[in-house]
Amino acid sequence: MESMMIWMPIAMAVLGLIYMWIKQSWVMKQDAGDGKMKEISDYIYEGALAFLSAEYKLLAIFVVIVSVALAAVSFIVPTTHVLIVVAFIFGAVFSAFAGNIGMKIATKTNVRTTQAARTSLPNALKVSFGGGTVMGLGVAGLAVLGLTAFFIFFFWYFMGSEWTNTMDMTIVLETLAGFSLGAESIALFARVGGGIYTKAADVGADLVGKVEAGIPEDDPRNPATIADNVGDNVGDVAGMGADLFGSYVATVLAAMVLGNYVIKDMGGSITDAFGGIGPILLPMAIAGAGIIISIIGTMLVKIKDNSAKESQVMGALNKGNWTSIILVALSCYGLVTWMLPETMKMEFFGEGLQEISSLRVFGATLVGLIVGAVISSVTEYYTGLGKKPILKIVQQSSTGAGTNIIAGLATGMISTFPSVLLFAGAIWASYAFAGFYGVALAASAMMATTAMQLAIDAFGPISDNAGGIAEMSEQEPIVRERTDILDSVGNTTAATGKGFAIASAALTSLALFAAYVTFTGIDGINIFKAPVLAMLFVGGMVPVVFSALAMNAVGKAAMEMVNEVRRQFRNIPGIMEGTGKPEYDKCVAISTEASLREMMLPGLLTIGFPLIIAFAPLAFGMDKLAIAEMLGGYMAGVTVSGVLWAIFQNNAGGAWDNAKKSFEAGVEIDGEMTYKGSEAHKAAVTGDTVGDPFKDTSGPSMNILIKLTCLIGLVIAPILGGHTQEGNNTEVVEVEVVSNYKGITGGENLNNKTETTVEMLTNDANGRVTANVEIRKTVNGKTTVITKTFTGTEDEVRAQLKDVEGIKIKIKDKS
Amino acid sequence: MESMMIWMPIAMAVLGLIYMWIKQSWVMKQDAGDGKMKEISDYIYEGALAFLSAEYKLLAIFVVIVSVALAAVSFIVPTTHVLIVVAFIFGAVFSAFAGNIGMKIATKTNVRTTQAARTSLPNALKVSFGGGTVMGLGVAGLAVLGLTAFFIFFFWYFMGSEWTNTMDMTIVLETLAGFSLGAESIALFARVGGGIYTKAADVGADLVGKVEAGIPEDDPRNPATIADNVGDNVGDVAGMGADLFGSYVATVLAAMVLGNYVIKDMGGSITDAFGGIGPILLPMAIAGAGIIISIIGTMLVKIKDNSAKESQVMGALNKGNWTSIILVALSCYGLVTWMLPETMKMEFFGEGLQEISSLRVFGATLVGLIVGAVISSVTEYYTGLGKKPILKIVQQSSTGAGTNIIAGLATGMISTFPSVLLFAGAIWASYAFAGFYGVALAASAMMATTAMQLAIDAFGPISDNAGGIAEMSEQEPIVRERTDILDSVGNTTAATGKGFAIASAALTSLALFAAYVTFTGIDGINIFKAPVLAMLFVGGMVPVVFSALAMNAVGKAAMEMVNEVRRQFRNIPGIMEGTGKPEYDKCVAISTEASLREMMLPGLLTIGFPLIIAFAPLAFGMDKLAIAEMLGGYMAGVTVSGVLWAIFQNNAGGAWDNAKKSFEAGVEIDGEMTYKGSEAHKAAVTGDTVGDPFKDTSGPSMNILIKLTCLIGLVIAPILGGHTQEGNNTEVVEVEVVSNYKGITGGENLNNKTETTVEMLTNDANGRVTANVEIRKTVNGKTTVITKTFTGTEDEVRAQLKDVEGIKIKIKDKS
Repeated sequence: MESMMIWMPIAMAVLGLIYMWIKQSWVMKQDAGDGKMKEISDYIYEGALAFLSAEYKLLAIFVVIVSVALAAVSFIVPTTHVLIVVAFIFGAVFSAFAGNIGMKIATKTNVRTTQAARTSLPNALKVSFGGGTVMGLGVAGLAVLGLTAFFIFFFWYFMGSEWTNTMDMTIVLETLAGFSLGAESIALFARVGGGIYTKAADVGADLVGKVEAGIPEDDPRNPATIADNVGDNVGDVAGMGADLFGSYVATVLAAMVLGNYVIKDMGGSITDAFGGIGPILLPMAIAGAGIIISIIGTMLVKIKDNSAKESQVMGALNKGNWTSIILVALSCYGLVTWMLPETMKMEFFGEGLQEISSLRVFGATLVGLIVGAVISSVTEYYTGLGKKPILKIVQQSSTGAGTNIIAGLATGMISTFPSVLLFAGAIWASYAFAGFYGVALAASAMMATTAMQLAIDAFGPISDNAGGIAEMSEQEPIVRERTDILDSVGNTTAATGKGFAIASAALTSLALFAAYVTFTGIDGINIFKAPVLAMLFVGGMVPVVFSALAMNAVGKAAMEMVNEVRRQFRNIPGIMEGTGKPEYDKCVAISTEASLREMMLPGLLTIGFPLIIAFAPLAFGMDKLAIAEMLGGYMAGVTVSGVLWAIFQNNAGGAWDNAKKSFEAGVEIDGEMTYKGSEAHKAAVTGDTVGDPFKDTSGPSMNILIKLTCLIGLVIAPILGGHTQEGNNTEVVEVEVVSNYKGITGGENLNNKTETTVEMLTNDANGRVTANVEIRKTVNGKTTVITKTFTGTEDEVRAQLKDVEGIKIKIKDKS
Repeated sequence: MESMMIWMPIAMAVLGLIYMWIKQSWVMKQDAGDGKMKEISDYIYEGALAFLSAEYKLLAIFVVIVSVALAAVSFIVPTTHVLIVVAFIFGAVFSAFAGNIGMKIATKTNVRTTQAARTSLPNALKVSFGGGTVMGLGVAGLAVLGLTAFFIFFFWYFMGSEWTNTMDMTIVLETLAGFSLGAESIALFARVGGGIYTKAADVGADLVGKVEAGIPEDDPRNPATIADNVGDNVGDVAGMGADLFGSYVATVLAAMVLGNYVIKDMGGSITDAFGGIGPILLPMAIAGAGIIISIIGTMLVKIKDNSAKESQVMGALNKGNWTSIILVALSCYGLVTWMLPETMKMEFFGEGLQEISSLRVFGATLVGLIVGAVISSVTEYYTGLGKKPILKIVQQSSTGAGTNIIAGLATGMISTFPSVLLFAGAIWASYAFAGFYGVALAASAMMATTAMQLAIDAFGPISDNAGGIAEMSEQEPIVRERTDILDSVGNTTAATGKGFAIASAALTSLALFAAYVTFTGIDGINIFKAPVLAMLFVGGMVPVVFSALAMNAVGKAAMEMVNEVRRQFRNIPGIMEGTGKPEYDKCVAISTEASLREMMLPGLLTIGFPLIIAFAPLAFGMDKLAIAEMLGGYMAGVTVSGVLWAIFQNNAGGAWDNAKKSFEAGVEIDGEMTYKGSEAHKAAVTGDTVGDPFKDTSGPSMNILIKLTCLIGLVIAPILGGHTQEGNNTEVVEVEVVSNYKGITGGENLNNKTETTVEMLTNDANGRVTANVEIRKTVNGKTTVITKTFTGTEDEVRAQLKDVEGIKIKIKDKS
C-alpha cells in the first residue's frame, strides 16, 4: 500500500476526470431548448471558441519563445534539465485544455439551465451547478494528473525511482517547475486577457446600447450583446479556472520543494514506508484526496423546494462547501500522521534546527483551511448587499458621484485591514507550526477544495448567462425569476470566490518565495542591504502600474467596441426594428483582438522586470548571490503590494457593484425611499463604472502577477543560485571510524571557502556512533559556522552524513 | 577654526533667524490695506489663531502623555537618558513655534499682498515671497538651532565635549532622537489635522455655498468662507512647514547616527581637526550652510516687469531655486572634503569593510540633490496643465465622471513608475557611493535647501488668500489678475513642493531605518523569517487604511460644516442680502474641532501599531532581537507602501485638479471647444471632488506616517536592541606586546557566546605594531566570525582596539 502511494494522486485525478466526463455527458444530454434560445446559445459558444482559437494562436507563439529561452537556461545551468521545456509545454497545454473544457461546458450549460428553469428551480440549479462541477473537476483533475505524472516520470528519469539525495530531488523539482510555469503563463493570457475582454464588451455594450440607444441589457438588437455574454465566460469562467489551475499546481510544487528541504534538514535522507519521500508526496496526496472530497461536496449541493429563495440555494452551496472543508481537515489529519515521520527536524532561519512533530504540520494545514473560510466572510462583509459598508456607500451616493467614489475607495482600502491581518496571522501561525513547509501545506490544504470552489464559482456566470438567454429569447417571467435567484447567489459566490483566489495566490506566492530562497541557497533576504531594499520598492510599484495599464486597456478596448456598435447601428438597415441582423461576430472579433493586444504591455511588465533584475546586473558581473537576494526583494515587494492592491480593487469594485444593485429593491436615504433612476442611483452607476475594471480586470490580474513573478524567480533561481557553487563545494572527507579521528578538507577560491570537519566517535558497549560535523562557510569574507551532530548505528550515521547542508560528504574508511 | 565647527550650524541658524526677523519686520511694515480688506484678513488671522490654540491644547495633553512614556523608557533602558523627555518637549515646542511664525506671517502677508497688487505685480511678488521667506527661514532656522544646541548640550553632558567612544556618542544621539520625535509629533497634528481642516472647510463651503445657494467662491456671505481661507493656511502653510521641519531634523539626526557608525567601523575613533567627530558634524554643517544659501536664493527671486506673465514669475523662482541647489552642491564639496578623513572605512552588509574616499560621500550628496530636482519635474509632468496625462483625463471627461475617475486613478498609479525607479536608483547609487551614511547624506543635501523650498511653497497659499481677499473686498479686476498670476504659479509650486516633501520623507525614512538597524544592533532584516515577512505585510497595509480613515474623516467633518452653513442660511436674517452677518467663528470652530477629533484614529494607528508590535511579543517573552527584526519589517512595509500611496494620491489628486482647471480656458474635445459648465466639465468637477482629499489630506499625511513610524522605531530601538546585550559582552582581554601572543577570553550564557582573540605583533625596525582581532559571536547557536587587523604605532593600535564592533577590549600589559 505505502509504496504505491506515489500513484494515489494520479488515481484520484483519473477518478475525478471520469466523474467529470459522466457529469459532462449528463449535462449535454439535457434539453438545449428551442430555436431562438439555441441560436443565441450557439452564438455565445462560437464567440467563446473564437476567443479561444485566437488565444491559442498567440499562446503558441509565446510557448515557442519561452521554450527556446528555457532550453537555453537548461544548457547554462547544470541543475536544470532540458526536460523543463517539455514540462513547460505540457503545463501550458493542460491548463489550456482545462480552460477549453470549462468554456465549452459553461457555454453549453447556460442554455440548458434556461431550459431547466422552465420546469423548476431545483432542476435549474442541478444543471447549472452540474456545469460548474464539470469545470471544477476538469481543472483540479488535469492539474493533479499532469503534475503527478511528470513528477513520477522525472523521479524515474533522474533518480531511477529510488531516493538518492536531496540534490537529485532538487533537479527533479526544478524541472517540474516548468509545468507550473506553463500553467501560470496560460493564466496570464486567460485572466488578464479575459479580464480586458469581458469589461471591454460590457462597457461597450452598455455605453451605446443602454445609454445612447436606450435599449435594455441583453437585448438581441445590440451587436455587442453576444460579446458581452461571451465575456462572462471568458473572464469569470476561463479566467478564474486558469487562475486556480495555476495556484493549485504552484502550491503543490512549492510544498514538494520545501518537503525536500525537510528531508535535507533531517540529514539528507529519511526512512519511511514511502521510499523516503513522504514529505514530498504528502502535498500531492492531499490534492488527490481533495478531488474525491470535492466530488462528495458537489453531490450535496441540491434543493428540493421549487419555491426556494436565495437563502436556501446559498444554504445548499454552503452545505457542500463546509462538508468538503471538514473532510479535507480529516483527511489531512490522516495523511499527515500516516505519511510523515512522527518527528521531523526543520531548520528555522536564525533559530537553528527544531524538532517538529507531524501533528504540528497538521496544525499548519488547519490554518490554511481557516484562512480560506474566513477570507470569504471578510469579502462578503465588505461587498455583500445589506451589509454596513454597502449601506454607507448608498448613503454617500445621495451627495453625488464624488462622494460615492470616495466611499467606495475607502471601503476597498479599509477592507485590507482584516484581510492583511488574517494573512499575516496565517503566515506567522503556519510558520510557527512547521516552518515554510507549514506555510506551503497550509496553502495546499486550502487549495484541496479547488474543484468544489470552482464549481461554486462557475455556476454563477452560467446562471447569469442563462438569465441573459431567457431575456433574449423572451421567455415567461417565471423563468427569469428562477435564473435571477441563481444569479443573485452567483454574485455573492463570485465575490467570495475572488477572496479565495487572492488568498490562494498570496499563500502560493509565499510558498514559492520560500522555495525560491531554498533553491538559490541564499542566506535569506536582507532588506538592510540597499540594493535589496531598492528592489523591494520597485516590486511594490509594479502591481500599481500593472493595474493602471489594465484599466487603461479596458478603456481603449471599450472605445473600439463603442465605435463598432455605433457603426452597425448607423449602417445596418432595420437593426433597431429587429429586422436587420447585427454582426455579432465583428464585435466578438474586436473584443478578442483588443484584449489579446492590450494584455501585451502588462504581460511584458510582469515577465520583463524579474528578467531584467536578474540578467542586467549579471551582465555587469555582479555577484550572483547578491542578485538572487535582490530578486527576492523584488518578489516580496510584488507580493505584498499585489495582495494589497488585489484586495483593495476587488472589494471596492464589489462594493460599488452592490451599492448600485441596492437601488433595484429601493434604499432609504434621509428617510426617503430611493429607487433606480434617481440622482443617487446615477451616482451609484458612476461608481460601478469605476468599479468594473477594478473587480473584473485589474484586481484579479494581481493574482497572476504575484504568482508568475515568484514562479519566474523560481525557474531562474538555479542560474543565480548556490547550486553550481554548491556543486563546486562538494567535498570528499576521509573518515576512519576508530575512536576519535578528525578528517578535514577544504576548497578555496578567491572570496568563498568551505571547510568541513567530520569527527566520528564510536561509543562503547552498544556500538553506537556519534558524528560531529563542523562546516565553516566563508562567503565574501564573512564566515558562518554550522555544527551538526548525528547519533545512531553506524549505518544510520553514514547515511545521514551523505548530504549535510548541501555538502556531500564521502566517507572513505581508512582501514 | 576647525575646533569651532561645532558652533557653525548654530551661528548660521541664528543668522537665518535674524534675517527672518528683518524680513518679517519689512513685511509687517507694508500697507495692510483699508477697512474691508483688513476686516477679512483679521477674520482669517483670528481663525488661524483659533485653530492654533485648540491644537496647542490638545498638543499639551499629548506631550504630557508621551513625556511620561518616554521617562518610563529612559528608566528601563540604560542607554536612553531621561533628558530625552526634555529634548522631546523642546522638539515639539520648536516645531509648534515655527508653525506659529509661519501661520502668523502667512495670514498677515496675504492682505499686504493684495494691497501691493494694487500698485504692481513685482511688488505683489516681493511681499508674498517675502512672507514665504519668513516661513522658510523660521522653519529651517529653528530646526537647525534646536537640534544643534541640544547636540552640543548632550555632547557636553554625556561626554564632556571630548570624544570617548561610539557607545557614549550613541547615548548622545539616542537622547537627541527625542527632539526629532517631538518635531514629528507636531507634524502629525499639523499635517493630518490641517489636511482634514482645509478639506472639510473647502468641501463644506462649496457644497452649500456654490452648489446649493449658488453664490461664488470666496463670497463673504458664505459663513464657511473664512474657515476655507484659514484652511489654506492651516493645511498648506503650517502643515507643509511642520512636515519639512520634521524631515529636516530627522534627516540630520539619522545622518549623525550613521556618522557615528562610520567612526565605529574605523575602529572606534578617528583623529581629525574636529575633535574626532567630523562625520557626525558634517550633516549639521551642511544644514547650516543651507540656511545661508537659501537666503541668497530667496534674494534672487524678483521680477521687474509689471506686465510679467506666469512664465517670468516661474523663471524668477527657478533662478533662486537652481542657484541654491548649485550652491549647496559646491558647499557639500567643500565641507565633505574638509570635514571627512580622506578615506574612511565603512562596513557594507555582507560585503565586509570597504575603503571609502570622501569624494564618494560627495557623490552621494549629489545624488540627493538630483533626486530633489528630478522628482519635481516628474510631479510637474503628471499634474501640470497642458501636459499629456492631463489632456487625456480631459478627453476622458467627455464620456462622463466614471471614465474621468478611471483616467485620474490610472494617472496617479502610473506616476509611481518613474518616481519609484528614481527613488530606487537613488537608494542604490547613494549606498554604492558611501553606504547608508551616503543615503542619509543624500537626504541631508536635498534637505539643505528646505528654507528655499518652503519659501517657494508658502508663497502659493499666500497669493491664493490674497486673491480671495481681493474678491471678498471687491477690488478692481487688475488686482485679482495680478494675484491670479501668482496663484497660478503657486499651484505649480504646490504640486512640485509635494513631490519634494515625499522625496524628503522617503529618504528620511530610509536614513532612519538604517539608523534603527544600527541602533538595535540586529543582523539586518531578513524577510525570509516568516514573522518579519508577516510584519512587512502589516506595514504595507497601514498606509492604505490610514488613507481611508483620513478620507472618511474629511467626509464626516465636511458634513458637519454643511449642516452648520445650512443652519446659518436658514436662521440668520438678511444673510443672503449681505445685511445679516454670518457667524464665521462658528464654522471655524467646527473645522477646528472636527479636524482635531478626526485625526485621533489615524494618529492612534500610526503610533499604536509599532508599539503593539514591539511590546506585545515582549510581554510573551519573545526574543528581543527577533522583535527588533519584526519591527524593522513593519517599518519597511510602511515606508514602501506609504511612498507608493503618497505618490499615487498626490499625483492623481493634482491631475484631477488641473484637468478641471483646464476647462476654465477651454479645451478641445472631439474637435469641439468645451468650457466650464459643460457636461464634461461637470465630470471633471466630480474627479476633483475625489482628488481633493487625495492630494490635500491622505496623500500628504503619508509623509508623516512613514517618518513617524521610523522615528518611533528609532526611539524604542534601545529597548529591543543589542546595546544592553553588548554591554554584557564587554570583555577584558589581556594582551602582552612582545612578539606573538594570543589573549583569549569568553563569556557564555545559554545561547549566546562571544569569544574574542587578540593577537599583537610587534614589527621589526620601525616599531610598528599589528593587531589581529578575531571575534566569534554565537547567537542562537549560529556563529559569525569577524576578523579585523589594525596596524600603526603602538598608541594608534591601542586606541583603535578600545572598541571593536561594540566589544570594548581592555589591554592589560603582561610585563
